[in-house]
Amino acid sequence: MRQATDRLSIQTRGKGLTEFTRAVWAWVDQQGMETGLLTLWCAHTSASLAVTENASPEVLVDIADAFERLVPEDRGQAGAQRYIHSLEGPDDMPSHIRTLLTGPQLTIPLAEGRLALGTWQGIFLFEHRTRPHRREVALHLIGE
Amino acid sequence: MRQATDRLSIQTRGKGLTEFTRAVWAWVDQQGMETGLLTLWCAHTSASLAVTENASPEVLVDIADAFERLVPEDRGQAGAQRYIHSLEGPDDMPSHIRTLLTGPQLTIPLAEGRLALGTWQGIFLFEHRTRPHRREVALHLIGE
Amino acid sequence: MRQATDRLSIQTRGKGLTEFTRAVWAWVDQQGMETGLLTLWCAHTSASLAVTENASPEVLVDIADAFERLVPEDRGQAGAQRYIHSLEGPDDMPSHIRTLLTGPQLTIPLAEGRLALGTWQGIFLFEHRTRPHRREVALHLIGE
Repeated sequence: MRQATDRLSIQTRGKGLTEFTRAVWAWVDQQGMETGLLTLWCAHTSASLAVTENASPEVLVDIADAFERLVPEDRGQAGAQRYIHSLEGPDDMPSHIRTLLTGPQLTIPLAEGRLALGTWQGIFLFEHRTRPHRREVALHLIGE
Repeated sequence: MRQATDRLSIQTRGKGLTEFTRAVWAWVDQQGMETGLLTLWCAHTSASLAVTENASPEVLVDIADAFERLVPEDRGQAGAQRYIHSLEGPDDMPSHIRTLLTGPQLTIPLAEGRLALGTWQGIFLFEHRTRPHRREVALHLIGE
Repeated sequence: MRQATDRLSIQTRGKGLTEFTRAVWAWVDQQGMETGLLTLWCAHTSASLAVTENASPEVLVDIADAFERLVPEDRGQAGAQRYIHSLEGPDDMPSHIRTLLTGPQLTIPLAEGRLALGTWQGIFLFEHRTRPHRREVALHLIGE
Protein backbone atom coordinates (compact mmCIF):
# COMPACT_ATOMS: atom_id res chain seq x y z
CA MET A 1 0.00 0.00 0.00
CA ARG A 2 1.34 3.45 -0.86
CA GLN A 3 0.32 7.10 -1.27
CA ALA A 4 0.86 9.80 -3.86
CA THR A 5 0.13 13.51 -3.56
CA ASP A 6 0.24 16.40 -5.98
CA ARG A 7 -1.39 19.72 -6.81
CA LEU A 8 -3.27 20.87 -9.91
CA SER A 9 -3.54 24.53 -10.85
CA ILE A 10 -6.71 25.45 -12.76
CA GLN A 11 -7.27 28.76 -14.52
CA THR A 12 -10.92 29.88 -14.46
CA ARG A 13 -12.62 32.45 -16.68
CA GLY A 14 -14.80 33.90 -13.92
CA LYS A 15 -18.14 32.49 -12.81
CA GLY A 16 -18.92 29.04 -14.14
CA LEU A 17 -17.72 25.47 -14.41
CA THR A 18 -14.33 24.41 -15.82
CA GLU A 19 -13.91 20.70 -16.49
CA PHE A 20 -10.61 19.06 -15.56
CA THR A 21 -11.52 15.35 -15.65
CA ARG A 22 -8.73 14.51 -18.11
CA ALA A 23 -6.04 16.08 -15.95
CA VAL A 24 -7.25 13.98 -13.01
CA TRP A 25 -7.29 10.78 -15.09
CA ALA A 26 -3.81 11.50 -16.43
CA TRP A 27 -2.38 11.97 -12.94
CA VAL A 28 -4.08 8.85 -11.58
CA ASP A 29 -2.81 6.80 -14.54
CA GLN A 30 0.76 7.93 -13.83
CA GLN A 31 0.54 6.47 -10.31
CA GLY A 32 0.03 2.96 -11.74
CA MET A 33 -2.40 1.73 -9.10
CA GLU A 34 -5.14 -0.87 -9.62
CA THR A 35 -7.22 -0.28 -6.48
CA GLY A 36 -7.32 2.85 -4.38
CA LEU A 37 -9.01 6.00 -3.19
CA LEU A 38 -8.55 9.41 -4.84
CA THR A 39 -9.26 12.64 -2.97
CA LEU A 40 -9.44 16.12 -4.49
CA TRP A 41 -9.40 19.20 -2.27
CA CYS A 42 -10.11 22.74 -3.50
CA ALA A 43 -8.14 25.10 -1.24
CA HIS A 44 -10.44 28.13 -1.60
CA THR A 45 -13.55 29.66 -0.02
CA SER A 46 -15.04 31.11 -3.21
CA ALA A 47 -14.60 28.19 -5.61
CA SER A 48 -15.72 24.59 -5.18
CA LEU A 49 -15.70 21.14 -6.78
CA ALA A 50 -18.63 19.66 -8.64
CA VAL A 51 -19.44 16.48 -10.52
CA THR A 52 -21.99 16.84 -13.27
CA GLU A 53 -22.83 15.98 -16.86
CA ASN A 54 -19.99 16.59 -19.27
CA ALA A 55 -21.95 16.15 -22.50
CA SER A 56 -23.84 19.39 -23.07
CA PRO A 57 -22.51 22.92 -22.49
CA GLU A 58 -26.13 24.06 -22.00
CA VAL A 59 -26.25 22.10 -18.75
CA LEU A 60 -23.34 24.15 -17.43
CA VAL A 61 -25.09 27.44 -18.25
CA ASP A 62 -28.27 26.27 -16.52
CA ILE A 63 -26.33 25.22 -13.43
CA ALA A 64 -24.60 28.59 -13.17
CA ASP A 65 -27.97 30.37 -13.60
CA ALA A 66 -29.56 28.19 -10.92
CA PHE A 67 -26.85 29.18 -8.44
CA GLU A 68 -27.46 32.87 -9.23
CA ARG A 69 -31.09 32.29 -8.21
CA LEU A 70 -30.38 30.10 -5.21
CA VAL A 71 -27.93 32.57 -3.67
CA PRO A 72 -28.53 35.93 -5.33
CA GLU A 73 -26.14 38.85 -5.30
CA ASP A 74 -27.35 41.91 -3.42
CA ARG A 75 -28.83 44.08 -6.15
CA GLY A 76 -30.47 46.48 -3.74
CA GLN A 77 -34.11 45.63 -4.59
CA ALA A 78 -36.76 45.57 -1.88
CA GLY A 79 -36.98 42.08 -0.38
CA ALA A 80 -33.66 41.02 -1.91
CA GLN A 81 -30.89 39.24 -0.07
CA ARG A 82 -28.62 41.71 1.75
CA TYR A 83 -25.14 40.90 3.02
CA ILE A 84 -23.28 42.58 5.87
CA HIS A 85 -19.92 41.52 4.44
CA SER A 86 -19.76 43.52 1.17
CA LEU A 87 -16.30 45.14 1.27
CA GLU A 88 -14.90 42.70 -1.31
CA GLY A 89 -17.68 43.33 -3.84
CA PRO A 90 -21.23 42.06 -4.43
CA ASP A 91 -20.02 38.72 -5.81
CA ASP A 92 -17.88 37.88 -2.75
CA MET A 93 -20.42 36.84 -0.11
CA PRO A 94 -22.60 34.82 -2.53
CA SER A 95 -19.43 33.05 -3.66
CA HIS A 96 -18.74 31.84 -0.10
CA ILE A 97 -22.30 30.53 0.25
CA ARG A 98 -22.33 28.85 -3.17
CA THR A 99 -19.01 27.22 -2.27
CA LEU A 100 -20.67 25.68 0.81
CA LEU A 101 -23.45 24.19 -1.33
CA THR A 102 -21.19 22.08 -3.55
CA GLY A 103 -18.21 21.76 -1.21
CA PRO A 104 -14.41 21.69 -1.36
CA GLN A 105 -13.82 17.96 -1.70
CA LEU A 106 -14.41 14.79 -3.72
CA THR A 107 -13.27 11.27 -2.85
CA ILE A 108 -13.52 8.74 -5.67
CA PRO A 109 -12.86 4.98 -5.52
CA LEU A 110 -10.46 3.41 -7.99
CA ALA A 111 -11.13 -0.24 -8.91
CA GLU A 112 -9.53 -2.36 -11.65
CA GLY A 113 -7.48 0.68 -12.64
CA ARG A 114 -10.56 2.84 -13.28
CA LEU A 115 -12.13 5.68 -11.29
CA ALA A 116 -15.76 5.00 -10.30
CA LEU A 117 -17.02 7.96 -12.37
CA GLY A 118 -20.15 7.12 -14.36
CA THR A 119 -20.41 7.57 -18.12
CA TRP A 120 -21.76 11.11 -17.87
CA GLN A 121 -19.86 12.28 -14.82
CA GLY A 122 -17.16 14.88 -15.26
CA ILE A 123 -15.10 16.66 -12.58
CA PHE A 124 -15.42 20.45 -12.54
CA LEU A 125 -13.95 23.44 -10.78
CA PHE A 126 -16.90 25.71 -9.97
CA GLU A 127 -15.65 29.32 -9.93
CA HIS A 128 -17.98 31.63 -7.99
CA ARG A 129 -16.14 34.97 -8.38
CA THR A 130 -16.85 37.25 -11.34
CA ARG A 131 -13.20 37.70 -12.29
CA PRO A 132 -10.91 34.88 -13.51
CA HIS A 133 -8.78 33.19 -10.86
CA ARG A 134 -6.05 30.57 -10.65
CA ARG A 135 -7.29 27.84 -8.30
CA GLU A 136 -5.31 25.13 -6.52
CA VAL A 137 -6.62 21.58 -6.13
CA ALA A 138 -4.69 19.14 -3.91
CA LEU A 139 -4.64 15.49 -5.03
CA HIS A 140 -4.17 12.46 -2.78
CA LEU A 141 -4.20 8.83 -3.83
CA ILE A 142 -3.85 5.85 -1.53
CA GLY A 143 -3.87 2.26 -2.77
CA GLU A 144 -1.82 -0.32 -4.58
CA MET B 1 -3.84 -2.96 5.60
CA ARG B 2 -6.09 -4.05 2.74
CA GLN B 3 -8.86 -2.83 0.42
CA ALA B 4 -12.20 -4.19 -0.72
CA THR B 5 -14.41 -2.88 -3.53
CA ASP B 6 -17.87 -3.73 -4.75
CA ARG B 7 -20.97 -2.24 -6.35
CA LEU B 8 -24.55 -1.95 -5.10
CA SER B 9 -27.49 -1.65 -7.45
CA ILE B 10 -30.45 0.30 -6.07
CA GLN B 11 -33.88 0.40 -7.66
CA THR B 12 -35.66 3.73 -7.14
CA ARG B 13 -39.36 4.48 -7.51
CA GLY B 14 -38.86 7.92 -9.06
CA LYS B 15 -38.28 11.15 -7.14
CA GLY B 16 -37.49 10.69 -3.48
CA LEU B 17 -35.20 8.99 -0.98
CA THR B 18 -34.55 5.23 -0.83
CA GLU B 19 -32.71 4.01 2.25
CA PHE B 20 -30.00 1.37 1.85
CA THR B 21 -28.18 1.58 5.19
CA ARG B 22 -28.62 -2.15 5.89
CA ALA B 23 -27.08 -3.20 2.59
CA VAL B 24 -24.06 -1.03 3.37
CA TRP B 25 -23.73 -2.46 6.89
CA ALA B 26 -24.01 -6.01 5.57
CA TRP B 27 -21.26 -5.48 3.03
CA VAL B 28 -18.95 -3.80 5.54
CA ASP B 29 -19.54 -6.64 8.04
CA GLN B 30 -18.55 -9.19 5.41
CA GLN B 31 -15.14 -7.53 5.03
CA GLY B 32 -14.30 -8.27 8.68
CA MET B 33 -12.38 -5.07 9.39
CA GLU B 34 -12.10 -3.32 12.78
CA THR B 35 -10.79 0.07 11.66
CA GLY B 36 -11.11 1.62 8.25
CA LEU B 37 -12.61 4.11 5.85
CA LEU B 38 -15.70 3.39 3.74
CA THR B 39 -16.44 5.39 0.58
CA LEU B 40 -19.69 5.30 -1.42
CA TRP B 41 -19.83 6.79 -4.90
CA CYS B 42 -23.06 7.32 -6.86
CA ALA B 43 -22.15 7.05 -10.55
CA HIS B 44 -24.93 9.31 -11.89
CA THR B 45 -25.65 12.97 -12.61
CA SER B 46 -29.36 12.92 -11.70
CA ALA B 47 -29.28 10.95 -8.44
CA SER B 48 -27.20 11.62 -5.34
CA LEU B 49 -26.33 10.33 -1.88
CA ALA B 50 -27.78 11.74 1.32
CA VAL B 51 -27.56 11.07 5.05
CA THR B 52 -30.62 11.99 7.01
CA GLU B 53 -33.05 10.86 9.69
CA ASN B 54 -34.28 7.32 9.20
CA ALA B 55 -37.05 7.39 11.84
CA SER B 56 -40.00 9.20 10.27
CA PRO B 57 -41.22 8.86 6.67
CA GLU B 58 -42.68 12.38 6.96
CA VAL B 59 -39.16 13.76 7.06
CA LEU B 60 -38.45 12.20 3.67
CA VAL B 61 -41.57 13.78 2.14
CA ASP B 62 -40.61 17.20 3.52
CA ILE B 63 -37.06 16.87 2.15
CA ALA B 64 -38.32 15.99 -1.33
CA ASP B 65 -40.75 18.93 -1.22
CA ALA B 66 -37.99 21.29 -0.10
CA PHE B 67 -35.87 20.29 -3.11
CA GLU B 68 -38.82 20.97 -5.44
CA ARG B 69 -38.89 24.51 -4.02
CA LEU B 70 -35.13 25.04 -3.95
CA VAL B 71 -34.66 24.02 -7.59
CA PRO B 72 -38.08 24.23 -9.25
CA GLU B 73 -39.02 22.60 -12.53
CA ASP B 74 -39.82 25.01 -15.36
CA ARG B 75 -43.59 25.26 -15.25
CA GLY B 76 -43.76 28.21 -17.61
CA GLN B 77 -45.00 30.81 -15.10
CA ALA B 78 -43.81 34.40 -15.27
CA GLY B 79 -40.70 34.84 -13.12
CA ALA B 80 -40.15 31.08 -12.85
CA GLN B 81 -36.86 29.32 -13.40
CA ARG B 82 -36.24 28.60 -17.09
CA TYR B 83 -33.73 26.07 -18.40
CA ILE B 84 -32.00 26.10 -21.79
CA HIS B 85 -31.38 22.36 -21.59
CA SER B 86 -34.92 20.92 -21.72
CA LEU B 87 -34.71 18.22 -24.41
CA GLU B 88 -34.76 15.40 -21.86
CA GLY B 89 -37.87 16.67 -20.07
CA PRO B 90 -38.70 19.26 -17.40
CA ASP B 91 -37.34 17.05 -14.59
CA ASP B 92 -33.90 16.58 -16.17
CA MET B 93 -32.15 19.89 -15.58
CA PRO B 94 -33.45 20.31 -12.00
CA SER B 95 -32.23 16.77 -11.32
CA HIS B 96 -28.66 17.73 -12.27
CA ILE B 97 -28.77 20.77 -9.99
CA ARG B 98 -30.32 18.89 -7.06
CA THR B 99 -27.62 16.24 -7.50
CA LEU B 100 -24.97 18.94 -7.04
CA LEU B 101 -26.57 20.08 -3.78
CA THR B 102 -26.24 16.76 -1.96
CA GLY B 103 -23.38 15.28 -3.96
CA PRO B 104 -22.22 11.92 -5.33
CA GLN B 105 -20.09 10.71 -2.45
CA LEU B 106 -19.91 9.78 1.24
CA THR B 107 -16.82 8.72 3.19
CA ILE B 108 -17.50 7.20 6.60
CA PRO B 109 -14.96 6.17 9.26
CA LEU B 110 -15.11 2.66 10.71
CA ALA B 111 -13.86 2.27 14.31
CA GLU B 112 -14.14 -0.74 16.62
CA GLY B 113 -16.00 -2.56 13.87
CA ARG B 114 -18.74 0.11 13.66
CA LEU B 115 -19.43 2.83 11.09
CA ALA B 116 -19.45 6.34 12.61
CA LEU B 117 -23.14 6.85 11.69
CA GLY B 118 -25.10 8.47 14.52
CA THR B 119 -28.25 6.93 16.02
CA TRP B 120 -30.60 8.73 13.62
CA GLN B 121 -28.39 8.74 10.53
CA GLY B 122 -29.41 6.58 7.60
CA ILE B 123 -27.81 6.35 4.14
CA PHE B 124 -30.13 7.19 1.24
CA LEU B 125 -30.11 7.21 -2.54
CA PHE B 126 -31.79 10.47 -3.55
CA GLU B 127 -33.47 9.94 -6.93
CA HIS B 128 -34.14 13.22 -8.75
CA ARG B 129 -35.79 11.93 -11.94
CA THR B 130 -39.57 11.44 -12.11
CA ARG B 131 -39.38 7.89 -13.44
CA PRO B 132 -37.90 4.92 -11.55
CA HIS B 133 -34.25 4.11 -12.27
CA ARG B 134 -31.71 1.48 -11.36
CA ARG B 135 -28.73 3.29 -9.79
CA GLU B 136 -25.18 2.06 -9.25
CA VAL B 137 -23.22 2.86 -6.10
CA ALA B 138 -19.53 1.93 -5.94
CA LEU B 139 -18.19 0.82 -2.55
CA HIS B 140 -14.58 1.06 -1.37
CA LEU B 141 -13.23 0.06 2.02
CA ILE B 142 -9.65 0.45 3.18
CA GLY B 143 -8.46 -0.64 6.62
CA GLU B 144 -7.63 -3.67 8.70
CA MET C 1 0.84 2.64 6.88
CA ARG C 2 -1.37 3.02 9.94
CA GLN C 3 -4.66 4.45 11.15
CA ALA C 4 -5.79 6.59 14.07
CA THR C 5 -9.35 7.33 15.19
CA ASP C 6 -10.86 9.61 17.79
CA ARG C 7 -13.89 11.71 18.56
CA LEU C 8 -14.28 15.46 19.17
CA SER C 9 -17.14 16.89 21.18
CA ILE C 10 -18.21 20.39 20.14
CA GLN C 11 -20.55 22.60 22.16
CA THR C 12 -22.69 24.87 19.97
CA ARG C 13 -24.60 28.01 20.99
CA GLY C 14 -27.61 27.29 18.80
CA LYS C 15 -27.90 28.18 15.11
CA GLY C 16 -24.66 29.21 13.46
CA LEU C 17 -21.08 28.21 12.76
CA THR C 18 -18.54 27.18 15.41
CA GLU C 19 -14.95 26.92 14.24
CA PHE C 20 -12.82 24.00 15.45
CA THR C 21 -9.89 24.08 13.03
CA ARG C 22 -7.31 24.27 15.83
CA ALA C 23 -8.64 21.18 17.59
CA VAL C 24 -8.38 19.26 14.31
CA TRP C 25 -4.82 20.48 13.69
CA ALA C 26 -3.80 19.58 17.24
CA TRP C 27 -5.12 16.04 16.91
CA VAL C 28 -3.51 15.52 13.50
CA ASP C 29 -0.17 16.82 14.82
CA GLN C 30 -0.29 14.32 17.70
CA GLN C 31 -0.48 11.44 15.21
CA GLY C 32 2.92 12.37 13.78
CA MET C 33 2.18 11.51 10.15
CA GLU C 34 3.75 13.17 7.11
CA THR C 35 1.35 11.99 4.40
CA GLY C 36 -2.21 10.83 4.87
CA LEU C 37 -5.94 11.33 4.58
CA LEU C 38 -8.06 12.87 7.34
CA THR C 39 -11.82 12.27 7.52
CA LEU C 40 -14.29 14.08 9.79
CA TRP C 41 -17.80 12.72 10.28
CA CYS C 42 -20.59 14.65 12.04
CA ALA C 43 -22.89 12.03 13.59
CA HIS C 44 -26.09 14.12 13.52
CA THR C 45 -29.02 14.91 11.22
CA SER C 46 -29.49 18.53 12.31
CA ALA C 47 -25.89 19.76 12.33
CA SER C 48 -23.32 19.56 9.55
CA LEU C 49 -19.71 20.32 8.63
CA ALA C 50 -18.63 23.32 6.59
CA VAL C 51 -15.41 24.83 5.31
CA THR C 52 -15.46 28.57 4.86
CA GLU C 53 -13.58 31.81 5.48
CA ASN C 54 -12.24 32.12 9.01
CA ALA C 55 -11.21 35.78 8.82
CA SER C 56 -14.39 37.83 9.29
CA PRO C 57 -17.24 37.07 11.70
CA GLU C 58 -19.56 39.00 9.34
CA VAL C 59 -19.19 36.21 6.81
CA LEU C 60 -20.56 33.73 9.34
CA VAL C 61 -23.62 35.90 10.02
CA ASP C 62 -24.31 36.24 6.29
CA ILE C 63 -24.01 32.48 5.78
CA ALA C 64 -26.47 31.73 8.60
CA ASP C 65 -28.90 34.32 7.15
CA ALA C 66 -28.59 32.81 3.68
CA PHE C 67 -29.56 29.39 5.02
CA GLU C 68 -32.62 30.91 6.73
CA ARG C 69 -33.69 32.16 3.28
CA LEU C 70 -32.74 29.03 1.35
CA VAL C 71 -34.67 26.71 3.66
CA PRO C 72 -37.13 28.87 5.62
CA GLU C 73 -38.91 27.87 8.78
CA ASP C 74 -42.68 27.52 8.50
CA ARG C 75 -43.95 30.89 9.70
CA GLY C 76 -47.50 30.30 8.54
CA GLN C 77 -47.60 32.96 5.81
CA ALA C 78 -49.43 32.34 2.55
CA GLY C 79 -47.07 30.81 -0.01
CA ALA C 80 -44.50 29.91 2.65
CA GLN C 81 -42.80 26.57 3.03
CA ARG C 82 -44.93 24.15 5.06
CA TYR C 83 -43.62 20.96 6.68
CA ILE C 84 -45.60 17.83 7.55
CA HIS C 85 -43.05 16.86 10.19
CA SER C 86 -43.42 19.63 12.79
CA LEU C 87 -43.73 17.74 16.09
CA GLU C 88 -40.20 18.62 17.17
CA GLY C 89 -40.62 22.35 16.57
CA PRO C 90 -40.44 24.74 13.59
CA ASP C 91 -36.62 24.62 13.51
CA ASP C 92 -36.40 20.82 13.26
CA MET C 93 -37.37 20.07 9.66
CA PRO C 94 -35.38 23.00 8.18
CA SER C 95 -32.39 21.76 10.20
CA HIS C 96 -32.53 18.36 8.47
CA ILE C 97 -32.68 19.99 5.04
CA ARG C 98 -29.89 22.48 5.78
CA THR C 99 -27.79 19.57 7.03
CA LEU C 100 -28.20 17.88 3.64
CA LEU C 101 -26.96 21.00 1.85
CA THR C 102 -23.55 21.12 3.52
CA GLY C 103 -23.23 17.46 4.49
CA PRO C 104 -21.90 15.33 7.34
CA GLN C 105 -18.37 14.71 6.13
CA LEU C 106 -15.03 16.21 5.09
CA THR C 107 -11.97 14.34 3.82
CA ILE C 108 -8.75 16.37 3.71
CA PRO C 109 -5.36 15.32 2.30
CA LEU C 110 -2.27 15.64 4.47
CA ALA C 111 1.03 16.23 2.63
CA GLU C 112 4.45 17.17 4.06
CA GLY C 113 2.89 17.19 7.51
CA ARG C 114 0.27 19.82 6.57
CA LEU C 115 -3.46 19.56 5.85
CA ALA C 116 -4.41 20.83 2.39
CA LEU C 117 -6.56 23.65 3.84
CA GLY C 118 -6.07 26.96 2.03
CA THR C 119 -5.05 30.16 3.80
CA TRP C 120 -8.63 31.29 4.41
CA GLN C 121 -10.22 27.89 4.97
CA GLY C 122 -11.45 27.02 8.45
CA ILE C 123 -13.37 23.94 9.58
CA PHE C 124 -16.76 24.64 11.17
CA LEU C 125 -19.58 22.80 12.89
CA PHE C 126 -22.78 24.23 11.44
CA GLU C 127 -25.50 23.97 14.08
CA HIS C 128 -28.99 24.14 12.58
CA ARG C 129 -31.13 23.83 15.74
CA THR C 130 -32.18 26.94 17.69
CA ARG C 131 -31.01 25.61 21.07
CA PRO C 132 -27.38 24.82 21.96
CA HIS C 133 -26.29 21.22 21.50
CA ARG C 134 -23.24 19.09 22.16
CA ARG C 135 -22.21 17.54 18.83
CA GLU C 136 -19.93 14.57 18.16
CA VAL C 137 -17.45 14.52 15.28
CA ALA C 138 -15.60 11.27 14.50
CA LEU C 139 -12.00 11.59 13.28
CA HIS C 140 -10.12 9.09 11.14
CA LEU C 141 -6.59 9.42 9.82
CA ILE C 142 -4.80 6.96 7.58
CA GLY C 143 -1.23 7.44 6.41
CA GLU C 144 2.37 7.26 7.51
